[in-house]
Amino acid sequence: MKVQRAGEEEQQAQSKKALKKQQKEAEKAAKKAEKQAKLAAEQQETDEDDFAKDRYGICPMVQSQQKLGKQCFLVLRHQQFTVQALLAVGDRASKQMVKFAANLTKESIIDVEAVVKKVEQKIESCSQQDVELHVERVFVISQSEARLPLQLEDAVRPEGEGDEEGRATVNQDTRLDNRVIDLRTTTSQAIFRLQSGVCQLFRDTLINKGFVEIQTPKIISAASEGGANVFTVSYFKTSAYLAQSPQLYKQMCICADFDKVFCVGPVFRAEDSNTHRHLTEFVGLDIEMAFNYHYHEVIDSITDTMVQIFKGLRDRFQTEIQTVNKQYSSEPFKFLEPTLRLEYKEAVAMLKAAGVEMGDEEDLSTPNEKLLGRLVKEKYDTDFYVLDKYPLAVRPFYTMPDPNNPKYSNSYDMFMRGEEILSGAQRVHDAQLLTERATHHGIDLEKIKAYIDSFRYGAPPHAGGGIGLERVTMLYLGLHNVRQTSMFPRDPKRLTP
Amino acid sequence: MKVQRAGEEEQQAQSKKALKKQQKEAEKAAKKAEKQAKLAAEQQETDEDDFAKDRYGICPMVQSQQKLGKQCFLVLRHQQFTVQALLAVGDRASKQMVKFAANLTKESIIDVEAVVKKVEQKIESCSQQDVELHVERVFVISQSEARLPLQLEDAVRPEGEGDEEGRATVNQDTRLDNRVIDLRTTTSQAIFRLQSGVCQLFRDTLINKGFVEIQTPKIISAASEGGANVFTVSYFKTSAYLAQSPQLYKQMCICADFDKVFCVGPVFRAEDSNTHRHLTEFVGLDIEMAFNYHYHEVIDSITDTMVQIFKGLRDRFQTEIQTVNKQYSSEPFKFLEPTLRLEYKEAVAMLKAAGVEMGDEEDLSTPNEKLLGRLVKEKYDTDFYVLDKYPLAVRPFYTMPDPNNPKYSNSYDMFMRGEEILSGAQRVHDAQLLTERATHHGIDLEKIKAYIDSFRYGAPPHAGGGIGLERVTMLYLGLHNVRQTSMFPRDPKRLTP
Repeated sequence: MKVQRAGEEEQQAQSKKALKKQQKEAEKAAKKAEKQAKLAAEQQETDEDDFAKDRYGICPMVQSQQKLGKQCFLVLRHQQFTVQALLAVGDRASKQMVKFAANLTKESIIDVEAVVKKVEQKIESCSQQDVELHVERVFVISQSEARLPLQLEDAVRPEGEGDEEGRATVNQDTRLDNRVIDLRTTTSQAIFRLQSGVCQLFRDTLINKGFVEIQTPKIISAASEGGANVFTVSYFKTSAYLAQSPQLYKQMCICADFDKVFCVGPVFRAEDSNTHRHLTEFVGLDIEMAFNYHYHEVIDSITDTMVQIFKGLRDRFQTEIQTVNKQYSSEPFKFLEPTLRLEYKEAVAMLKAAGVEMGDEEDLSTPNEKLLGRLVKEKYDTDFYVLDKYPLAVRPFYTMPDPNNPKYSNSYDMFMRGEEILSGAQRVHDAQLLTERATHHGIDLEKIKAYIDSFRYGAPPHAGGGIGLERVTMLYLGLHNVRQTSMFPRDPKRLTP
Repeated sequence: MKVQRAGEEEQQAQSKKALKKQQKEAEKAAKKAEKQAKLAAEQQETDEDDFAKDRYGICPMVQSQQKLGKQCFLVLRHQQFTVQALLAVGDRASKQMVKFAANLTKESIIDVEAVVKKVEQKIESCSQQDVELHVERVFVISQSEARLPLQLEDAVRPEGEGDEEGRATVNQDTRLDNRVIDLRTTTSQAIFRLQSGVCQLFRDTLINKGFVEIQTPKIISAASEGGANVFTVSYFKTSAYLAQSPQLYKQMCICADFDKVFCVGPVFRAEDSNTHRHLTEFVGLDIEMAFNYHYHEVIDSITDTMVQIFKGLRDRFQTEIQTVNKQYSSEPFKFLEPTLRLEYKEAVAMLKAAGVEMGDEEDLSTPNEKLLGRLVKEKYDTDFYVLDKYPLAVRPFYTMPDPNNPKYSNSYDMFMRGEEILSGAQRVHDAQLLTERATHHGIDLEKIKAYIDSFRYGAPPHAGGGIGLERVTMLYLGLHNVRQTSMFPRDPKRLTP
């Protein structure tokens, strides 16, 4: 367990000047502490008459900062959970032992042996409110440096509370620069445990439906989506690209008889977008599936998978959801069964009725997507829906045209809380039509020859889509920045840690 | 279902010349077929008195090559399974319909409606040997081109049989160049379904043990393993690298309180090795875990995970194992419980006893690894074992030295059928010792500052390892080339498809 708070000291919000001053003091203190620790170690060796000397341990590097009285409180943390611990001079602890505990640096890892006792008054500051630990042994496993790059209590302060009460919060760059500390907050622990759950629910649902997991290459010889926004890699004496999606490969697997496939893996976009929802590297949850008669069979499979994820999160990750809500409050995520499916035309009509001026075959802007989300929520009371039949002109060349209206296509996006989380379509599975569509889009046929050739030897009709994992986690929890749901986010300005 | 064989025609092994000739003929035939198809379509429109005209369909592109008699046999394939189908002129099929079926091109996708009938004599050439289909309707969903880049029956021919009987086999490059066709073989279908199972068993076992799945970045700012063999990526106005392992990130997660983590994802090695077991991009199954007293707790977790995978494959993928064995025969994979663990010293002694000359702290060469595998199999009857306590000098800088012998380390490899599938170790979790070890290895401390700093704020003792998915699949099935277990393999000479 980690020591979250030791002694009675409480660190306050600090100005830069104060930080510098403290840094100097910390350096001084560190030197002093080293001396003291050495001294303490020597003392312990000779201090044969301490009856509790096998009940605590001292590392050569322990830093002694503060002298204390007869008892000391610690807050111990293990992942999402915290508990109060008490050491009092008495049968099981000596004065030296209490002093040792009071001087433990925050975030040090310790082993404790203790008796669990009920408390009369709830301990509001800990997750375990009805009990405390009466410590009988305490050993340091790993000593933290005295000065932390950020304070965990600042990093979990509820949104807005910092401003109102003038207490410190931690800005996003400080968090990300010191991600190892920031990930220790109860909020981060909950976010990433829930995200692990999203992956697990996604895969379990699909495996139950007879899907096969595939692994697709990330280093590719030709830019998969036309050539824009692609990262270049030096590859021995030539150069290659990083895959912008597993699109072509999962389609090749469908042509290779795998029938229903999925993959989970990194996706790379060299897009210079510095927004709350764009990353240059994110995790794609990808699906591709042959169907019998209509691509709505595939939409139904995907929406059912999403619904299984939502239900699994709601039923198995309630602790995590509530932990995150303590810092970032949001309404519970709502969804319908069966999932609401609207046609693009209907969406445009709803937006126009709400005063938006736009063309019928114009793509949705981000603000219009969000507005549409609000309109849909009002009318249908759902945070999740499918928008079907996009205009053909705004979709990639491999999108199957709508047989009933050449201006539209058999393609769809899915939305959570008004933001896009999946883009998908029926793909053209006929080499001749695919050639025509690629030519229409001005794509160099030579570069996609292998792709087109895949459809020459028997290719079933198929459709699929790609889901952004970080967006699903962000939007399910009602968070506001995709960097909160990427452990080590990458954007045009951030490559570390 | 796909048509695997139509009519009575059987394609023979072909010389290059014959292939060229055939190509020309095919082109001619294609033109002719187009005409015929058009004709046939017209004929069908007018041929009002065909009583079976709603029982079959004709695509404008169907190629008619051959006239037949009163019945025709098809072999239909769905993934790993094949069945014989029969059309005979009678109640349910007209002469035209039988002709249509006999002219179906191989690998075309069709829908059939048929009656399943028992047969008296086993059909040796199909996986479904006791029944055949009496076809009543047949419709083409997707027409294959008449000339295939490779023949599926050649591609599944058992090893050796091609040579002995002078029948065609398909070489590896032809297979990989036409992977969409090659992946349709029963062998490929079985290999990749089993591989999907390896991933599933790996994750399910670890999730049951309380592990959390993490996602680590693949684009990184500093080469993770010292700087050799790393791919460079253009990253906006700067450059970056492709991660050679998730090593540093999974350790950071341990320092961030996640306790036990795993990840499944691509790993990149810019190594110019053209061997049977090296890829430039492969899938890593990675584990990292905090422990209490001894890194053997982690070895036990990993070996137990491997044993669960072996058992799961044996119990749930027997069909796939047998399918692969038909083409590539091998002995069933043997393992012990608990897993055999040998010390490096013992292995060197075994090799020396077998006549190998080597130094005590010298690394194992590939031939010596294989020889050791044979010696271990003879002595202990297992295809899976752990080699523990490697010489410190042959391991990376972050490996924890053996406290009892400074020449050795708390590190280990795991082997399947005499080849390495996992490399792992207890990691140094103390910033000061890590700095010392990095300096000893001549590593630029400035470049790994963020990594070293991760251990300054409380870091638990921890160990882990990385497993190569393609190697596990290859060695479990007793295959001989890792390209057989990578859907779209990448090596110094191959970037496509």
